[in-house]
Amino acid sequence: MRATFQKESVSEELALEMLEAAIGKARELGKAFAIAVVDESGVLKSFIRMDGAPLISVQVAIDKAYTAAGYGLPTHRWYELLMEDRPLAMGAHAINRLIVFGGGYPISVGGRIVGGVGVSGGNAEEDMKVAEAALEVLDKSDTSRGDRERAQEHT
Amino acid sequence: MRATFQKESVSEELALEMLEAAIGKARELGKAFAIAVVDESGVLKSFIRMDGAPLISVQVAIDKAYTAAGYGLPTHRWYELLMEDRPLAMGAHAINRLIVFGGGYPISVGGRIVGGVGVSGGNAEEDMKVAEAALEVLDKSDTSRGDRERAQEHT
Amino acid sequence: MRATFQKESVSEELALEMLEAAIGKARELGKAFAIAVVDESGVLKSFIRMDGAPLISVQVAIDKAYTAAGYGLPTHRWYELLMEDRPLAMGAHAINRLIVFGGGYPISVGGRIVGGVGVSGGNAEEDMKVAEAALEVLDKSDTSRGDRERAQEHT
Amino acid sequence: MRATFQKESVSEELALEMLEAAIGKARELGKAFAIAVVDESGVLKSFIRMDGAPLISVQVAIDKAYTAAGYGLPTHRWYELLMEDRPLAMGAHAINRLIVFGGGYPISVGGRIVGGVGVSGGNAEEDMKVAEAALEVLDKSDTSRGDRERAQEHT
Repeated sequence: MRATFQKESVSEELALEMLEAAIGKARELGKAFAIAVVDESGVLKSFIRMDGAPLISVQVAIDKAYTAAGYGLPTHRWYELLMEDRPLAMGAHAINRLIVFGGGYPISVGGRIVGGVGVSGGNAEEDMKVAEAALEVLDKSDTSRGDRERAQEHT
Repeated sequence: MRATFQKESVSEELALEMLEAAIGKARELGKAFAIAVVDESGVLKSFIRMDGAPLISVQVAIDKAYTAAGYGLPTHRWYELLMEDRPLAMGAHAINRLIVFGGGYPISVGGRIVGGVGVSGGNAEEDMKVAEAALEVLDKSDTSRGDRERAQEHT
Repeated sequence: MRATFQKESVSEELALEMLEAAIGKARELGKAFAIAVVDESGVLKSFIRMDGAPLISVQVAIDKAYTAAGYGLPTHRWYELLMEDRPLAMGAHAINRLIVFGGGYPISVGGRIVGGVGVSGGNAEEDMKVAEAALEVLDKSDTSRGDRERAQEHT
Repeated sequence: MRATFQKESVSEELALEMLEAAIGKARELGKAFAIAVVDESGVLKSFIRMDGAPLISVQVAIDKAYTAAGYGLPTHRWYELLMEDRPLAMGAHAINRLIVFGGGYPISVGGRIVGGVGVSGGNAEEDMKVAEAALEVLDKSDTSRGDRERAQEHT
């Protein structure tokens, strides 16, 4: 019997650097956003509400991150799914905390969902740009293959 | 005056065997699902989240089972009902925990609803197949007529 | 930057075997219990409500498992903590889902909390015996050192 | 008629620096904590859950910050209040999200409550030390007199 299985979970360092990168992009856009990172189990990992970001954005950013981690899909992809599947469209409101417009992305490392990032405060396009800036931290640090895989290469 | 009436309720044995049968079908399909059984009162009876099943599936599987037991209809039949009844379609979101896409079935023994089974983790078709595999336990054990009826035949 | 860190999480196999072992002990005691396993993030992993277990036990068993996984302590140890720490005792009711009487234990593999098991339906002593029977599955399968550590020994 | 009044609210910069300072102290202590900052309205401003911090700490840290900002008192001072006021002690559980053990402090600038910081993960003494480290950011940046007051000096 296999008693346990392994999960990879977004680190505090990555979670904080993602906030910083998102804030950088937000300043370029000249708007204030709420930015949330959740772990692979949907639990809040890091968060910032920029000065002046809309109040409603606080919940929406967190739930976008939750939605993205909770099913492994960007939130805007959910909208496309609903367009193709009318029963799902009729019933999606019954799925707790599901946000189906842009601004949430899964955080994927080495092919595994290790968390989610959600952004709210602008229109969907702006929210997506800010979230994408957060995800670029992963590429820059060349950690997209995951610690375990790298560890194996070194043995 | 009749002081009480009887309910038939899904047993712990059936509830556990339904999980096992559903897991068997899930492995055939090569995906991980959350699988829930509730009793005739909508109370959780048995549950398993397979390793790696999406986080969101936990709530959805339980609520599909609840919906199915709660009105005696498979969840995909609710969608058909909503299509035929516009007031119901407009208002269904006000019914707590109602899931109207496939993957939930009432558990019916001897013509009575004794519980519900709900599955989430794949697309609607896959969820339905896994839930149907759970229901097949009933046929195999020849209990579909209900214990009380069989007992009557033997007297 | 370390992008992720690893978690070990209770497997579906262990979670189901723990239910079976707990049911075995429950039958010895001649009572019906609700038995819940949650993962390392407090998400429901497996569950059974034995036939006739009190309705209230459903929530209590799940929250005992959550409490145990959520802080890494058996629920009866929380009572001892509260006895030593009056401010905590005054305020513990504000901690969501915290159960401070016996029947919940962390599931520990290789020194890590990989989940929690919670039992409700009898008195605290009975609940604890049933939960302990579930934990004994770990010892029997000699997996208490964790998969990763065993893997290392074999390399 | 005075149509509006002004609030001072913790800035995103201060809120992020407080997280960093708290993490620094946490590493000294060798433990993992959840650390939350809320604004003067109790709304989440910044948050980090350090790798391995107990699950239960997520809610408790946020609610400690909320409690501190919500009445302008450190959370451990609430316990002293309750000890002196029996009706309050009997009824405090009815106050939503009130945490009455140590680890939450108001953030005070120029004599005004501009937010709250809450820490959870260790014992009360450790939580308090980490929260106090976050508050020291204020002293270092010489902003304790408030921006408006300094602005007045410069005119």
